[in-house]
Amino acid sequence: MGSTRIVGEPLENIPWQPRPAGDDGVVWRHDGNPIIGWNPTRRTARVFNSAVVPFGDAFVGVFRADHRDGRPQIHVGRSQDGLTWEIDDEDIKWTDESGAPYQPFYAYDPRVVRLDDTYYIIWCTDFGGPALGFGMTRDFQEFTRLENLTIPFNRNGVLFPRKVNDKYLLLSRPSDSGHTPFGDIYLSESPDLVHWGRHRRVMSRSVPEWWQAVKIGSGPVPIETSEGWLLLYHGVSGPCNGFVYSFGAALLDLENPAKVLYRTRDYLLTPEEPYETVGFVPNVAFPCATLCDPGTGRLTIYYGAADTYLAVAYADVDELIAHLKENSALVPGDAEEFR
Amino acid sequence: MGSTRIVGEPLENIPWQPRPAGDDGVVWRHDGNPIIGWNPTRRTARVFNSAVVPFGDAFVGVFRADHRDGRPQIHVGRSQDGLTWEIDDEDIKWTDESGAPYQPFYAYDPRVVRLDDTYYIIWCTDFGGPALGFGMTRDFQEFTRLENLTIPFNRNGVLFPRKVNDKYLLLSRPSDSGHTPFGDIYLSESPDLVHWGRHRRVMSRSVPEWWQAVKIGSGPVPIETSEGWLLLYHGVSGPCNGFVYSFGAALLDLENPAKVLYRTRDYLLTPEEPYETVGFVPNVAFPCATLCDPGTGRLTIYYGAADTYLAVAYADVDELIAHLKENSALVPGDAEEFR
Amino acid sequence: MGSTRIVGEPLENIPWQPRPAGDDGVVWRHDGNPIIGWNPTRRTARVFNSAVVPFGDAFVGVFRADHRDGRPQIHVGRSQDGLTWEIDDEDIKWTDESGAPYQPFYAYDPRVVRLDDTYYIIWCTDFGGPALGFGMTRDFQEFTRLENLTIPFNRNGVLFPRKVNDKYLLLSRPSDSGHTPFGDIYLSESPDLVHWGRHRRVMSRSVPEWWQAVKIGSGPVPIETSEGWLLLYHGVSGPCNGFVYSFGAALLDLENPAKVLYRTRDYLLTPEEPYETVGFVPNVAFPCATLCDPGTGRLTIYYGAADTYLAVAYADVDELIAHLKENSALVPGDAEEFR
Amino acid sequence: MGSTRIVGEPLENIPWQPRPAGDDGVVWRHDGNPIIGWNPTRRTARVFNSAVVPFGDAFVGVFRADHRDGRPQIHVGRSQDGLTWEIDDEDIKWTDESGAPYQPFYAYDPRVVRLDDTYYIIWCTDFGGPALGFGMTRDFQEFTRLENLTIPFNRNGVLFPRKVNDKYLLLSRPSDSGHTPFGDIYLSESPDLVHWGRHRRVMSRSVPEWWQAVKIGSGPVPIETSEGWLLLYHGVSGPCNGFVYSFGAALLDLENPAKVLYRTRDYLLTPEEPYETVGFVPNVAFPCATLCDPGTGRLTIYYGAADTYLAVAYADVDELIAHLKENSALVPGDAEEFR
Amino acid sequence: MGSTRIVGEPLENIPWQPRPAGDDGVVWRHDGNPIIGWNPTRRTARVFNSAVVPFGDAFVGVFRADHRDGRPQIHVGRSQDGLTWEIDDEDIKWTDESGAPYQPFYAYDPRVVRLDDTYYIIWCTDFGGPALGFGMTRDFQEFTRLENLTIPFNRNGVLFPRKVNDKYLLLSRPSDSGHTPFGDIYLSESPDLVHWGRHRRVMSRSVPEWWQAVKIGSGPVPIETSEGWLLLYHGVSGPCNGFVYSFGAALLDLENPAKVLYRTRDYLLTPEEPYETVGFVPNVAFPCATLCDPGTGRLTIYYGAADTYLAVAYADVDELIAHLKENSALVPGDAEEFR
Amino acid sequence: MGSTRIVGEPLENIPWQPRPAGDDGVVWRHDGNPIIGWNPTRRTARVFNSAVVPFGDAFVGVFRADHRDGRPQIHVGRSQDGLTWEIDDEDIKWTDESGAPYQPFYAYDPRVVRLDDTYYIIWCTDFGGPALGFGMTRDFQEFTRLENLTIPFNRNGVLFPRKVNDKYLLLSRPSDSGHTPFGDIYLSESPDLVHWGRHRRVMSRSVPEWWQAVKIGSGPVPIETSEGWLLLYHGVSGPCNGFVYSFGAALLDLENPAKVLYRTRDYLLTPEEPYETVGFVPNVAFPCATLCDPGTGRLTIYYGAADTYLAVAYADVDELIAHLKENSALVPGDAEEFR
Repeated sequence: MGSTRIVGEPLENIPWQPRPAGDDGVVWRHDGNPIIGWNPTRRTARVFNSAVVPFGDAFVGVFRADHRDGRPQIHVGRSQDGLTWEIDDEDIKWTDESGAPYQPFYAYDPRVVRLDDTYYIIWCTDFGGPALGFGMTRDFQEFTRLENLTIPFNRNGVLFPRKVNDKYLLLSRPSDSGHTPFGDIYLSESPDLVHWGRHRRVMSRSVPEWWQAVKIGSGPVPIETSEGWLLLYHGVSGPCNGFVYSFGAALLDLENPAKVLYRTRDYLLTPEEPYETVGFVPNVAFPCATLCDPGTGRLTIYYGAADTYLAVAYADVDELIAHLKENSALVPGDAEEFR
Repeated sequence: MGSTRIVGEPLENIPWQPRPAGDDGVVWRHDGNPIIGWNPTRRTARVFNSAVVPFGDAFVGVFRADHRDGRPQIHVGRSQDGLTWEIDDEDIKWTDESGAPYQPFYAYDPRVVRLDDTYYIIWCTDFGGPALGFGMTRDFQEFTRLENLTIPFNRNGVLFPRKVNDKYLLLSRPSDSGHTPFGDIYLSESPDLVHWGRHRRVMSRSVPEWWQAVKIGSGPVPIETSEGWLLLYHGVSGPCNGFVYSFGAALLDLENPAKVLYRTRDYLLTPEEPYETVGFVPNVAFPCATLCDPGTGRLTIYYGAADTYLAVAYADVDELIAHLKENSALVPGDAEEFR
Repeated sequence: MGSTRIVGEPLENIPWQPRPAGDDGVVWRHDGNPIIGWNPTRRTARVFNSAVVPFGDAFVGVFRADHRDGRPQIHVGRSQDGLTWEIDDEDIKWTDESGAPYQPFYAYDPRVVRLDDTYYIIWCTDFGGPALGFGMTRDFQEFTRLENLTIPFNRNGVLFPRKVNDKYLLLSRPSDSGHTPFGDIYLSESPDLVHWGRHRRVMSRSVPEWWQAVKIGSGPVPIETSEGWLLLYHGVSGPCNGFVYSFGAALLDLENPAKVLYRTRDYLLTPEEPYETVGFVPNVAFPCATLCDPGTGRLTIYYGAADTYLAVAYADVDELIAHLKENSALVPGDAEEFR
Repeated sequence: MGSTRIVGEPLENIPWQPRPAGDDGVVWRHDGNPIIGWNPTRRTARVFNSAVVPFGDAFVGVFRADHRDGRPQIHVGRSQDGLTWEIDDEDIKWTDESGAPYQPFYAYDPRVVRLDDTYYIIWCTDFGGPALGFGMTRDFQEFTRLENLTIPFNRNGVLFPRKVNDKYLLLSRPSDSGHTPFGDIYLSESPDLVHWGRHRRVMSRSVPEWWQAVKIGSGPVPIETSEGWLLLYHGVSGPCNGFVYSFGAALLDLENPAKVLYRTRDYLLTPEEPYETVGFVPNVAFPCATLCDPGTGRLTIYYGAADTYLAVAYADVDELIAHLKENSALVPGDAEEFR
Repeated sequence: MGSTRIVGEPLENIPWQPRPAGDDGVVWRHDGNPIIGWNPTRRTARVFNSAVVPFGDAFVGVFRADHRDGRPQIHVGRSQDGLTWEIDDEDIKWTDESGAPYQPFYAYDPRVVRLDDTYYIIWCTDFGGPALGFGMTRDFQEFTRLENLTIPFNRNGVLFPRKVNDKYLLLSRPSDSGHTPFGDIYLSESPDLVHWGRHRRVMSRSVPEWWQAVKIGSGPVPIETSEGWLLLYHGVSGPCNGFVYSFGAALLDLENPAKVLYRTRDYLLTPEEPYETVGFVPNVAFPCATLCDPGTGRLTIYYGAADTYLAVAYADVDELIAHLKENSALVPGDAEEFR
Repeated sequence: MGSTRIVGEPLENIPWQPRPAGDDGVVWRHDGNPIIGWNPTRRTARVFNSAVVPFGDAFVGVFRADHRDGRPQIHVGRSQDGLTWEIDDEDIKWTDESGAPYQPFYAYDPRVVRLDDTYYIIWCTDFGGPALGFGMTRDFQEFTRLENLTIPFNRNGVLFPRKVNDKYLLLSRPSDSGHTPFGDIYLSESPDLVHWGRHRRVMSRSVPEWWQAVKIGSGPVPIETSEGWLLLYHGVSGPCNGFVYSFGAALLDLENPAKVLYRTRDYLLTPEEPYETVGFVPNVAFPCATLCDPGTGRLTIYYGAADTYLAVAYADVDELIAHLKENSALVPGDAEEFR
């Protein structure tokens, strides 16, 4: 332990709680969970599976907000401490590259990454089937809709926070038109954020580890560390009364992120608490964003709970990576470049 | 607001609680929910999805009572205040029109309507598949079983409380032999409560409003108002871990109830509370009866919760209709007479 | 044998071929089958599952005609001998009772019955799901669309050729929204051909007889005989590579047709010939119409083959009923009045 | 009441709580439920569906322990009072009959029976599909793996605690490769615990009793009484949002246990409590073991709750059998020897 | 080639046709196929998937005969040349071991093996689900029904023609309650033909060889040769319009038949001919019996075609085994003893 | 008619047969169909769904060849007349861009397009699910495998024969992991044949036209004409016994091929002939390649039949486009640029 170096800017105001006494987990829950409950705005029923980024000396959230008509849209919110949020009642108003207004029919599970001074947002959009919608903003006031990143059926897309080998990198999860009962993580590269190719399969669902035997999908933006890209991802098991979404982590090779170096044999967090086990979709813990402070190694994980709540968990990156190395179980082929 | 006139008799002893301070919902829950919990009678495991009507100066309930053998039957109960109930341990003993005793194999989701001095009961019955069973009583002591209203597969039937254009009217929801994953509301008319025809499709499930995208079904007996027939109905969404039943409202044309005037874009109530989200069937709020006091505009809604409990919610009819008009979203074809 | 009396008008020009030497079947095939093959009209790909009635001194057919766009419509055709047909390229142009033109989105599997001087047509129509469309004509030139007979989901509707106990009678088969994997035959009665009630379940699919274990459905208009109503019906089995449609017969009580007197244990005809086993839907023999000559007892059966062709088979009513009585297998409940 | 004699050794230290005042159930819950909660050992997430036997003057448990990688294994634990448990963090290390180490890929739902001085363990094992794994121990320190009792697909196997007619007897539940949506209980006999034959179907799922209409499966080792073999078994119903597992009881003929004498019409216990209705698999109460004291007639039932917890319930055998006799509902064929 | 020795009695009157000129297949079809067509007896619609054995100086067949009611039964037939058959119109009349008559509800896919002077028949029977029925005869006149060999769900059982290591051996295919979409071959052993144990998985479906990727099942009785047990088996692929049944062969170790020595990478015969591709179940070639003459190495294969016809193919055992050795593709684990 | 100009090189040796007398179809079949039957090479069972291009003064085919092990590979073949083929028994041996040999696990449904002097081949490949494999050759002797064009799940990819607006264009059909029961056609563009973006939905399955209501997919390389890009595509309907694959045509805007100008309301060809309706997958007509002679307007269509045969049909481009314009039925949104 103690040897991992995190690449990134200091984030001293990161929300944080130390591990409770007596807790020996690698990841531990915020004691005020859920941080966002039912009906957070007038038209919003539930907020979950959302992105948070530092912005100025505070935080901005890009939230999945399921309206009371049942349809998800993405909303912006602001917070001083990353835990208490002011969320807009209106969803984001996009402008097309041509300047025309654009409104997705639905938009869910946003991830946000900062590349230079621009914040890119990926969401799941309606493109004759779920696909990866894409847009950008510099100020979280004006939002430009860009070309969809993929054709259907795709979910759980996330960009790397910098180019690797001079290429932008995208993780995504090919899916189908319904409640996909399968799914692996793929990597694509792009010279321009518009055209994508040189696809690789990065990680597969893993039969021996039942918590991730049905499907897996990328979660938050990968975190660059001296040991590799730290990727949190969700894994799904399929017991007889519905899917269960837990999450784990993997470490991808820095120069060739299609190569998995380590991968958690055990989940890091699984639904145990009432706000995770009961709600619109019982038994879901679904991470979509992290904050990380390189100086302290503090890692704050935002995860959707039961498709109803937003919750927070904490970890120490150094400990997490040490744990990951010692408790790793690769699936055959994980470490190969499958194309 | 203030302009809606409700047609009906005064009901001054209607169960009632005013909207809690700080609650801005159109519908609000009774603070003693659920009003009927597990094992209310010796042989009954769960009571839910039930009908309540004023009777004399008190109230009578016709309850869906799932026995401990798992099979539903309908039971009668009595209450002074509409909230505290004495429920018979025996199910209703029917007599056929010929005077022979009749016992349905199963009977569930009853609705009761008063037409003149007769109380008609519709339930879901076994007719080589679920269909609409039918019977009547004048005193809730003797019950006459009448001809089934429909062939299978049909559920969620409810009569209008008076003839319209000299015809009895029935709303129903064509279904299938299992856990129907589709379903719209139809209207039929009859000269004699025996023969039915001139069917119309009234309302369809609505793709843009996901809370009602899978299926919809009539709830309580429509309420006659100066603005139209006020229909509460349930809508079902289909997230990955099971159906979610919420409810909304529609206003149907007084003279031609096949025509939808307004329809709630948002649900009025969705499962949020523990008694709604946890139980035999998680995430169900299913209205089957209302009481209404024309003088005050008070509306008391009885709804089944999680197929386990009976719960109560309140609304002000005037507010509800105003809200409905301002937040309506018709589905293409709703306002047309589709036959 | 020899004791059955058929009720009806003479039909001396009935199409006919005697049983081939060496054939010991109760039903035998026309040697020129199929009588209608691929692409019978410019816009029609396939004609099958169709109705034929005597009209004047010739015959009229009301054909299911699947257009080259894949959608079925019903067309009229004319024939001198009942075997060689002139089929209109245009589908029937309906006029509503109000005089407005009406065109069903799709229309299939028509049955035609003559009541007095009127020919009534039932078809499967789009009513937010398959239901029984209804119309009439007196001359096969002008066609009046009437109210749909049922709400969805219903197929295989057929009227009795006269009132029984002063009521019109309808057989139908409750279904679902797709390729229904279940289905029994029900009876409904009406004073006016508009309103229907007093429903009874007539016959169920039969597990012991696998040829009819999946679903059954009425075929041609029941034939009145001294022994009861002779009903041809299709039965479906479900082997591993697709449904197989055969047909059999039942004898219903004359005064109470909800009561089954006899029912064929074995099918009468099952797909064996290339035009029955190969085509758009392999392995279908689906009877929709008969012609019958009381004087000779000749019975001519029109049946769709493989959803591609129209074919003809023959039987002697007297023999058929004798066979039916000797080889009958009722399903428990068949002979009871199930409501 | 009072007439049942239980065959077996005294068990004076049986865990016990008397029926709470006001509770009129035949079975009542332990007031400290669940007795084992989340994360009971370092690598174990959940313990449920487990076996308990008296051993020396204390108790030994053979636990289904689902690891944090999601895969179930069986672990040994020890307890002085049968309620507070010390559970090994390691799963059982088996030795093959040849002395070679053996480790099942997965192992779940163990039952343990003592035959003479040997404790036999049956579990659900991976044999190219779920089948009945088998092993033995004398001291719960050394464990010998024996031949699998069955080919796939089989679950819920349990041995009788003595030979009957000089043959070992096994109850099992034929299944399929997934979340079996059907299932009855069968009996097989063996001269040597290796070869099995003379199979009989003992009990079927029961359509009239919906709590057991989908599938049933043996629970704990049958208890020998003067009235017959007392078998606790689980029954499963299939409402629209997932299976519900309850449990009931049957009394099998002492000399011919393929013959059912009585069978509970109503469940004895169904999921009502939070630890039964919420968890990894909501709505599961699944009994796997009992303790019984012949002197007092006390019966302690261990049951898995929500595939997450271990819980305990109590009954009086005498009362239970009296109740069973008075509230029995056999399914047609239950009392016959179906082979 | 030329080195394989077949163990068995001479069968000089084996039906035979030499390989046609220009045919380079290992297996070739009889030129008079199918040898049994539609409606071979009065009550039988189709004969297929049947057993044939030498008996005296002629042949006896035990036929799957699907009656015109759709239900399969097994019938006996006799032939002088093995190609032209006299088939009884009545199904086999069984007597129980107690002397009571026994009639299976259904019986299909029989295999017959001779052990000493007794002919044992295995079929698929109704035992609360498909299981392996069992009986014996010495003269094909009197038939004794024995205990079912397995509990459900099992199909495709076949006995070895002699004891191996002093144990009887049975191959079977665990299945489910419907049209099983999976299935591997298992081996069980018995001291007495009543009790079975020491189960092993012999062969799995093979993903790389798509012709056998869905399921496999034993065909005829294994043939003893100097190179091992020659097993013909069917393999099933699953293209979009229904299963396709082909057949191949394997060579099992003589002393340990749970060990696969060789296994055909390619099918030996797949449905190509009209009688194989069209019928009640299109695209089925399903072998159930062989005849073999050790002196000449002639092998005659009886196979069901399209669940409608009985057909014959020929091979030379020596060539077949040489081909098998040169074109073998084992699935991982095939050659191991999986228990 | 007569006004369409085809862009491309003369192809005077195009295989050709004039429309038979009495045939009024827009497309007519070759009278020697199928041109390739069962077992065309030693290891190949069936050839279908294949590409053909002019090469030198003869023709080269890139064939889907399903081997006798059931797995498809692509083979090269050569023909002087485009009708009689010499097909290699070995599948294509690919070399990776790095020079390493590459062999796809499976490869099917190839399309070939010539861009300048290079022939690009797209096939459906195994990439953790079906995706678009990609390669090139200049001489059909040496083949270079390039990067996969897409991530899974995708099928039916085809390149345009030239850049449009300086971008390469690709049509593809997003799919799922099985026998996709849905599917529309999308367009993607690329600057370099490696990276793809700016995706558009071009055409959807069409509910009103049942022949193409389930899914559609591109067929041969689009043909450039003065009226637009002529695209042949397959459409699939879903009757109860399996998918039926027919084909039609569309005309796409020359400059913006995401815009559909016309689209056939009726199929052009549907399975009618024995080689189309019977085989490994009954009822498939699946076009993968065309040849076209600008001078005469002759169009030769290669299509797979029943996943078993290769067949040929003919059309006159001028007539085809005139027909298309007069019988077009656009689906709502077809003519819009949906992204």
